[in-house]
Amino acid sequence: MTTRTEATFFPPIPEAQRWLHGVSFPQDRPLINLAQAAPADPPPAPMLAAMAEMLAEPTSHLYGPVLGHPALRTALAEDWARHYGGTLYAENFGITAGCNQAFAAALTALTTEGDEVLLPVPWYFNHKMWLDMSGVRAVPLPCNDGLIPDVEAARALITPRTRAIAIVTPNNPTGVEYPAPVLRALYDLCRQAGIKLIVDETYRDFDSRSGAPHDLLTDPDWDQTLVQLYSFSKAYRLTGHRVGAIIAASDLLHQVEKFQDTVAICAPPFGQKAALWGLENLAQWKAEQRDEILARRNTLAAAFQPLADQGWKLRGLGAYFAYVEHPFSMGSADLAPLLVQKAQALVLPATMFTPAGDPTGDRCLRVAFANADADRLRTFVSRLAELDLARLRPAS
Amino acid sequence: MTTRTEATFFPPIPEAQRWLHGVSFPQDRPLINLAQAAPADPPPAPMLAAMAEMLAEPTSHLYGPVLGHPALRTALAEDWARHYGGTLYAENFGITAGCNQAFAAALTALTTEGDEVLLPVPWYFNHKMWLDMSGVRAVPLPCNDGLIPDVEAARALITPRTRAIAIVTPNNPTGVEYPAPVLRALYDLCRQAGIKLIVDETYRDFDSRSGAPHDLLTDPDWDQTLVQLYSFSKAYRLTGHRVGAIIAASDLLHQVEKFQDTVAICAPPFGQKAALWGLENLAQWKAEQRDEILARRNTLAAAFQPLADQGWKLRGLGAYFAYVEHPFSMGSADLAPLLVQKAQALVLPATMFTPAGDPTGDRCLRVAFANADADRLRTFVSRLAELDLARLRPAS
Repeated sequence: MTTRTEATFFPPIPEAQRWLHGVSFPQDRPLINLAQAAPADPPPAPMLAAMAEMLAEPTSHLYGPVLGHPALRTALAEDWARHYGGTLYAENFGITAGCNQAFAAALTALTTEGDEVLLPVPWYFNHKMWLDMSGVRAVPLPCNDGLIPDVEAARALITPRTRAIAIVTPNNPTGVEYPAPVLRALYDLCRQAGIKLIVDETYRDFDSRSGAPHDLLTDPDWDQTLVQLYSFSKAYRLTGHRVGAIIAASDLLHQVEKFQDTVAICAPPFGQKAALWGLENLAQWKAEQRDEILARRNTLAAAFQPLADQGWKLRGLGAYFAYVEHPFSMGSADLAPLLVQKAQALVLPATMFTPAGDPTGDRCLRVAFANADADRLRTFVSRLAELDLARLRPAS
Repeated sequence: MTTRTEATFFPPIPEAQRWLHGVSFPQDRPLINLAQAAPADPPPAPMLAAMAEMLAEPTSHLYGPVLGHPALRTALAEDWARHYGGTLYAENFGITAGCNQAFAAALTALTTEGDEVLLPVPWYFNHKMWLDMSGVRAVPLPCNDGLIPDVEAARALITPRTRAIAIVTPNNPTGVEYPAPVLRALYDLCRQAGIKLIVDETYRDFDSRSGAPHDLLTDPDWDQTLVQLYSFSKAYRLTGHRVGAIIAASDLLHQVEKFQDTVAICAPPFGQKAALWGLENLAQWKAEQRDEILARRNTLAAAFQPLADQGWKLRGLGAYFAYVEHPFSMGSADLAPLLVQKAQALVLPATMFTPAGDPTGDRCLRVAFANADADRLRTFVSRLAELDLARLRPAS
């Protein structure tokens, strides 16, 4: 018998962290950890001060409504409408304990055993894991050379069992920002097929484009097709406080309430209050964070240019991530643990984001660059440049 | 098509809370809300002071290890060994975002589509809901008149698809504390059948018996059969901070790590730190809380005695709950909403804890008495006594 968890793989981040066990690093070459896409710093001081005051409120410590505090749902609806346009209501916004939970809850409300969901390859590993654990087949959706999903391929892959296409933009692991016309084409395809388009916008606050990344919410009947997912973890550094959201039809959220009640009871009210405070007070600070991450992105792109001569390629770059093609003959699954030893750097092999046989899996690494400042990013790239190509047997 | 969430019912607590919408209560007869089994007060002041200091630690706000902070796992293992005996290791303790999540994670590691799990009736509704959403058949296990599971009935219900018997002691909804010999008999049955005994001990800190409620952990190979679930919500009033635990074989917890990573990333580190502080500092306070709840239990039992003449029966009493049989001809599902109007009291009908046709479902109510002080409990009982029996059509 194969249980639901046996049907999937072990989570990549703890697996990669195990490569560090027992390894010591020279004092002048400390580890550069670019494995996880999460802020490494606590929330800003004004938010911490506000959180100290929230501790005195009894409601910070008790259960709250299953789908989230009404004030947060309302504030998020207003924030969302300002950014994306459209007429949105609090009842379209459900609060979850993080964006991973938002995906799991939405999928549990949309699928059952034997259903199918299209995932562009490379995919976000936790999406694949949840589908595996749910008895839902993750159907690999090919991307073009620019790592953008192929809409016509998607059309051909839809069967009577397909319930959704689930995408991430800006993308994890590639960093690619999907163009608005691609989102519109996928949305139209889903609407025609009577399935959902699930768009995980965890990294929306770090999109390099100004304005809304798509106009899907301006369709009056958007909620018949679109499901959006969001996280407060990145924008407000509330990572550990576990607050995310689902934006969807209110009747779908009523179904989601069953999963949330059974698996979470509610997202932590203390984190929800902090998220609300962030929405109300940190717009300027968030814009500065975005500027800083966009500057790091530019630093990494510039530092990488000379490596083209050695056969390195920057395949994708944006949000928290670079998707980097390496020049070595060995596969990325062997290369990544070796980089801990050789480059004192921890990055993830693309095999953690791809099915066996995917052309980018063996060739690429995911570099979560957003937490490293310009100096560390340049140091990281220079360590890659110094790698002994001969000993690593470069591809011929 | 029936989706996973459509395969189950809506969560009872929000459903019951909807009975309050638009209802106003006389100033001299405010609502007595005995619906939810959760502390109504914040953590004690010394813990709040400690939490204020934790806010200054960056690790309170970042992701932590998927299965919980090692210090909390170690402290819980020591606490557990002191109480239950046996030799226990931190690697047997996994931290979850609440005890509901502990159940969902454990079941996801133990079952797949079409499997079966035995649940004593009445059951805890979120257990039934998770099995429904997992494609696992919840097989009703009959209890005797004392609401104790029937071990021989369990033996007869086990099939090749049975993966576990899942029980709650002290029980939710009945309050009954299962005797140690019953637990031993169920454990032996599960060991012989090669299945797991899952024991949800959320209310262990309020057991009226002194010492350990069972000695199962003193078996050297307990982890081949036993899975325990625990919650920090009740003992330390950390309800909203979402911290629970699974006690199990370390290889099962390694499987659980997949679910936790995908659905939660980790339990909130801030809540985990508070739970650790509670374990280290609140033993005396917790004992006093237990004394207070046992006193309330006695108050309720005494107040209830005169109602026996009107046909009321206290079927179960313990932990946070009384399981009360009413004397009216109408079913409890009709009676409970009516009690909001007639008795200004919110309690749950036993139909929320039973399959259709269960003998106690129509006849009983669950009273979550632990949050009400002695005066309110007496007022509640007196309101029941005053109910107009004729208008409520007593059973003949």
